[in-house]
Amino acid sequence: MRIALFGLGRMGANMARRLRRHGIEVVGYNRSQEIVQRLVEEEGILPAASVAEAIDQLPAPRVIWLMLPSGAPTEQMVLDLADRLEPGDIVIDGGNSNYHDSQRRGALLAARGIRFADCGTSGGIWGLENGYCLMIGGDSDTIEVVTPALQALAPAADRGWAHVGPVGSGHFTKMVHNGIEYGMMQAFAEGFALMRGKEEFNIDLAQVAELWRHSSVVRSWLLDLTADALAQDQQLETVEPYVADSGEGRWTVIEGVDQGIATPVLALALQMRFNSQDKEGYPYKLLAMMRNAFGGHAIKQR
Amino acid sequence: MRIALFGLGRMGANMARRLRRHGIEVVGYNRSQEIVQRLVEEEGILPAASVAEAIDQLPAPRVIWLMLPSGAPTEQMVLDLADRLEPGDIVIDGGNSNYHDSQRRGALLAARGIRFADCGTSGGIWGLENGYCLMIGGDSDTIEVVTPALQALAPAADRGWAHVGPVGSGHFTKMVHNGIEYGMMQAFAEGFALMRGKEEFNIDLAQVAELWRHSSVVRSWLLDLTADALAQDQQLETVEPYVADSGEGRWTVIEGVDQGIATPVLALALQMRFNSQDKEGYPYKLLAMMRNAFGGHAIKQR
Repeated sequence: MRIALFGLGRMGANMARRLRRHGIEVVGYNRSQEIVQRLVEEEGILPAASVAEAIDQLPAPRVIWLMLPSGAPTEQMVLDLADRLEPGDIVIDGGNSNYHDSQRRGALLAARGIRFADCGTSGGIWGLENGYCLMIGGDSDTIEVVTPALQALAPAADRGWAHVGPVGSGHFTKMVHNGIEYGMMQAFAEGFALMRGKEEFNIDLAQVAELWRHSSVVRSWLLDLTADALAQDQQLETVEPYVADSGEGRWTVIEGVDQGIATPVLALALQMRFNSQDKEGYPYKLLAMMRNAFGGHAIKQR
Repeated sequence: MRIALFGLGRMGANMARRLRRHGIEVVGYNRSQEIVQRLVEEEGILPAASVAEAIDQLPAPRVIWLMLPSGAPTEQMVLDLADRLEPGDIVIDGGNSNYHDSQRRGALLAARGIRFADCGTSGGIWGLENGYCLMIGGDSDTIEVVTPALQALAPAADRGWAHVGPVGSGHFTKMVHNGIEYGMMQAFAEGFALMRGKEEFNIDLAQVAELWRHSSVVRSWLLDLTADALAQDQQLETVEPYVADSGEGRWTVIEGVDQGIATPVLALALQMRFNSQDKEGYPYKLLAMMRNAFGGHAIKQR
């Protein structure tokens, strides 16, 4: 099997490596050519200096797997491919696109006879070694064509990947996955903060994290990573208390609102990230001002 | 080594079994004698029909491990043992006591020279097979005496148990563990509800749960259990939407308030359980009434 991989960033490059190590031919295209050359040398991928050059190296039906940043870069590439590909060709969006965009793009490509599938991809920087968790949405015949690639990327041929539903459902499922991830992370963060705050017990957070990895109810991969990190450093003095958020966490909360289904913990975990991003603290300034206004409580001065 | 185990309920009985299977002599006492006789026959424990009879079968320093319901039953037993034991003897509370109670009981027993340790125990009904995750608080010399029992109960002699700090810290750590558990569970529940709510995708929740077990960021023991349960039944029609809560979830939230440390997700996960327990829905009735009062919005009638 030969597929093209567009977008050889941290995720895409490792996926190219994993595909190659499972005997799949990979045509690699990336805006910056440096990583392409590196993957040619290290993994024997077939280089492409342009979209056209990549397409020319693919047998019909062409399979192009996108690992581009969500939003404009993916949108522009899909529009470009809509003009360049032929009926029966297949585009997989393996990035973190909003599932509504994926549904729209699927329809846009389908109008030209081009097949589309959206693949949510979890596993981060550990995917190369452990395999990726893949949730793909699309038509069965489309997914059948790319199954060898899914089996190579997954932790094993028979697990860690699944056809979850029609176009859109792959990114939808990945979105919810990330929403859950936010909630789990926040729960751990709050719990460890409480243990650290109980100074009289002088609890070794690294010891507790490691301990909980074995037979506790909260054992999880996130805890494994936390235990590793805390073993290196549990004071975290050099870490800015700023937590970024990517699209999926927000989209999950919007989905809850759209459906009218309560997702209080997922929403609050997201809100806490927003709060961490707000270094000005204007709401807190307002609260301090109000307390002063009605109760004469002192305002702490900067 | 020989220890007494008081309280042979679901947890205690399985712990007796695991101790026996690791060659530790167990003197078993329980208010109802039926389980005692069963464990005599099945595991060869030494039966005790009373507290005094149990104490008589122990060599000095006596080690008595309590697996009683938290609150009054544990309190009464500690007071009883305070009168019966001798200096140097050891009481371990392996139940789910509030850590403030454990600190108080430790001091009460220490005043009579009796040693005390509080042991948080996680693992539930799976502990017999997999071992228990044990977090114990107390003096090092006390814990040294009971280390063979900890090693037998833990998943392995060198992991899944730890001396986390002074008296109180064992139950404190277990309390926070359970608080985190509430948050993780709620995050999963909200996410799966969103996937179920997206009817157009007709997502197989059992398939997704199983899929996520492999290489995803949310993989965890709670997800393993969820995948197993959803594989049996994902409509859950016979399950009442009522979630009980035990002490630890509440105590964790109170601890956050005591420390003045924000635990919004842990608190909200607990509040959602309270909400599930409220079948009357009086707050919702009030809200409907208010909407009607200011906006004339119709009240849905029973």
